[in-house]
Amino acid sequence: MAATDGRRLNELAARLADHLGPGGLLTGAEVGARAEAWGSTGSCQALAIARPATTAEVAAVLSHCNDAGLAVVPYGGGTGLVQGAIASAGELLLSLERLRGPPDIDPLGRTAVVHAGVALQEMQQAADEAEFLFPLDLGARGSATIGGNISTNAGGNRVIRFGMMREMVLGLEAVLADGTVVTSMNRMLKNNAGYDLKQLFIGSEGTLGVVTRAVLRLREKPLSQNLALVAAPSFAAVMRMLKLADRALGGQLSAFEVMWREFYEIVTTPPARNKPPLAQGSPYYVLIESLGGNEAADRHHFEEMLGSLFDERAISDAVIADSRAHYESLWTIRDSVEELLRFGPPLMFDVSLPIAAMEEYVRGVREQLERQFPGNRCVVWGHVGDSNLHVWISTALPVTESRAAVEHVVYSPLRAVEGSISAEHGIGVEKRSHLGLSRSGAEIGLMRELKSRLDPRGILNPGKIFA
Amino acid sequence: MAATDGRRLNELAARLADHLGPGGLLTGAEVGARAEAWGSTGSCQALAIARPATTAEVAAVLSHCNDAGLAVVPYGGGTGLVQGAIASAGELLLSLERLRGPPDIDPLGRTAVVHAGVALQEMQQAADEAEFLFPLDLGARGSATIGGNISTNAGGNRVIRFGMMREMVLGLEAVLADGTVVTSMNRMLKNNAGYDLKQLFIGSEGTLGVVTRAVLRLREKPLSQNLALVAAPSFAAVMRMLKLADRALGGQLSAFEVMWREFYEIVTTPPARNKPPLAQGSPYYVLIESLGGNEAADRHHFEEMLGSLFDERAISDAVIADSRAHYESLWTIRDSVEELLRFGPPLMFDVSLPIAAMEEYVRGVREQLERQFPGNRCVVWGHVGDSNLHVWISTALPVTESRAAVEHVVYSPLRAVEGSISAEHGIGVEKRSHLGLSRSGAEIGLMRELKSRLDPRGILNPGKIFA
Repeated sequence: MAATDGRRLNELAARLADHLGPGGLLTGAEVGARAEAWGSTGSCQALAIARPATTAEVAAVLSHCNDAGLAVVPYGGGTGLVQGAIASAGELLLSLERLRGPPDIDPLGRTAVVHAGVALQEMQQAADEAEFLFPLDLGARGSATIGGNISTNAGGNRVIRFGMMREMVLGLEAVLADGTVVTSMNRMLKNNAGYDLKQLFIGSEGTLGVVTRAVLRLREKPLSQNLALVAAPSFAAVMRMLKLADRALGGQLSAFEVMWREFYEIVTTPPARNKPPLAQGSPYYVLIESLGGNEAADRHHFEEMLGSLFDERAISDAVIADSRAHYESLWTIRDSVEELLRFGPPLMFDVSLPIAAMEEYVRGVREQLERQFPGNRCVVWGHVGDSNLHVWISTALPVTESRAAVEHVVYSPLRAVEGSISAEHGIGVEKRSHLGLSRSGAEIGLMRELKSRLDPRGILNPGKIFA
Repeated sequence: MAATDGRRLNELAARLADHLGPGGLLTGAEVGARAEAWGSTGSCQALAIARPATTAEVAAVLSHCNDAGLAVVPYGGGTGLVQGAIASAGELLLSLERLRGPPDIDPLGRTAVVHAGVALQEMQQAADEAEFLFPLDLGARGSATIGGNISTNAGGNRVIRFGMMREMVLGLEAVLADGTVVTSMNRMLKNNAGYDLKQLFIGSEGTLGVVTRAVLRLREKPLSQNLALVAAPSFAAVMRMLKLADRALGGQLSAFEVMWREFYEIVTTPPARNKPPLAQGSPYYVLIESLGGNEAADRHHFEEMLGSLFDERAISDAVIADSRAHYESLWTIRDSVEELLRFGPPLMFDVSLPIAAMEEYVRGVREQLERQFPGNRCVVWGHVGDSNLHVWISTALPVTESRAAVEHVVYSPLRAVEGSISAEHGIGVEKRSHLGLSRSGAEIGLMRELKSRLDPRGILNPGKIFA
């Protein structure tokens, strides 16, 4: 530890001792014993880990750090994929892990008040037990926290129906860099009394404030779930299918997840444990889900919709989930991304672009990759209804050596189609050097202006989003 | 005209002559010939009216006014209800009326690119002709513009299903006070590349920038519409009905509009032209609408839902629309607010509060009014599913004399229930002195900080939102 770090640590411990109780500040070996992020093999490099248990404690930590010019990295579940919550040496990790408690559900208002450190899955379960649905869902649900979901504007599988996390947050409380607590715990669907300040903190990756609590919108719990896996003969058929299914289901379409052929084959071929519910060999496979209010009628309607997709030649084969276990097994195919790791660590991308440009985009990326990295493996799948593709690429080279060239192949064609280098994962450290590809100079200038105004000393998650 | 105004006008005309073509700047009698707002009897007091026809022209106007320290009032359709677009003497009215053209609809991406000056109804019709739905809807659709809808985060009748205008805007272009054009014309449902800058301009009533263009999300055009008018025996029944209908309709509930008895009786009693489709005398009447994808199945399902509402004693009477004309006539009852004007000009309120607090809130307001203004008329209706009530109050006194006391009666109980003085109309000039009732000092401080950073010379719609 550098001498200056030792001095800072002593100051920090002294100043925060009164504010944070026992276990409120971890130092030394307790820091190094933690991983730097979920699933990472590296250990936490932070100067210390603050674990405030109340909003007032968060405010005290930030106020001190702002005075001392000490960088603070807010930390939720650590499940982000863009190095957005990794602390460098000399920075304080601010973990919201003790800011928790059972979500407070208002059954008449159909809202939940929840602390930032609550895991997404806990929130989902609390809603479910109260006969509601909290519709945000993503693979890391067990570890990802509500605070992290808000700070990164999480997406996931049901955005087409319920929107991203931004659309589910009615109110929130955040602490500014200087320790000012801004409490905007609105519980209503409509509130146009002045600026909608919560928007500043949603999706800004902890660079403008630290989210401590939120009011979330709950939905009535669906009484029916229908799911089909279908095969499509072309991308034009996929686009036609999206339109037809969305129209026929009239508001009940809740997922439209497309797997390109390679994805489907890898996750349904041994050693993967899934058996292929539909024969391999089609260019595209799609999971179509509906959530509705009438079990018998919705099932009939869903089958009719599938019939019309056959009639319109949008699909060539289909299987419909006929039990809860079958439903789970079909979703498991889509969620078996860990099977893709058997070819070595891939470079993982999360881009968005207009659906009409997708087929040509993927073709172009593959062509460039084949030219530069013969024998590479490029696996594509995604939330096509939301314009969002995930692309995982493995080459013969280690990712450290191939990264720059592969990023160029994946990102550069996005400019022409006005796509985005980040659909749902955010920018973090990983994508910051590419931000200019999806944002203009005027946009980045305005972002920096907001940042400098709200965090004039630059203590909040420095180096994330902006290079 | 004051001497200083004359000088300013000459300067303005000289500087903008090159930028704005013929008819681009109205002065003198052309200004006075215009009403100060839609339906107002007052004439426009502005120094001049700029009518830019392109984003670049908007930028030129703002750049000049910023340099000259000249206040600018952005103006859409003038249909706002809170004096948010009224120019005082010496201020420039910036009308977006020439920033228009047919909406550019992308049928595969399901988006529309539209200019700020396009009327909401034009946008709805363009979507309809392309077999889509643009779901924002409100009474002033013929005059209200998309730019105004964005700047005020318009709500209306279908928020419960599709959200407010904020949720329908995928991207936008805005011009900052100094003339900087910020173009964020994102066309995707997901884009987490840095801060979501468009949020700054949505609902900020033209105080942070002038919206010039937007990308709007379109929905598939519904294939079925079902509508019922029902009578409810109590407010508890109304709340039960909302939950049951939302759950049974499984995503298809598109409106839940409640009329308190007085409202229903006024709009269905001569001289009003509507006949009462259900007997008068119930305490509440509710319009329940669903939009779906299957005409026969949805009708059957809707009728089943109504049957279950009878079974659960949530409703005591019902009529279901059985033709397009019948459908229109039922909506007309809800939309006949002009019938309320026959008792003299009312004070009009638009508040939001948790649904569980509504019955007691209305009772308390009536009690206070009766004490202070015996014989007053207090008419209540609203988008109860969105927590939003409209309250119109007529007393024996002219509104100028009763306003302060009536505002106190309506607004002050909102604090205890964490309600809002503005659900969907905004703050403008009318509500600015009450902002502190719904927003904390920390929130207003942060709003002012954003304002001073983005508009350091304070030229954008000064005096609106903040006193």
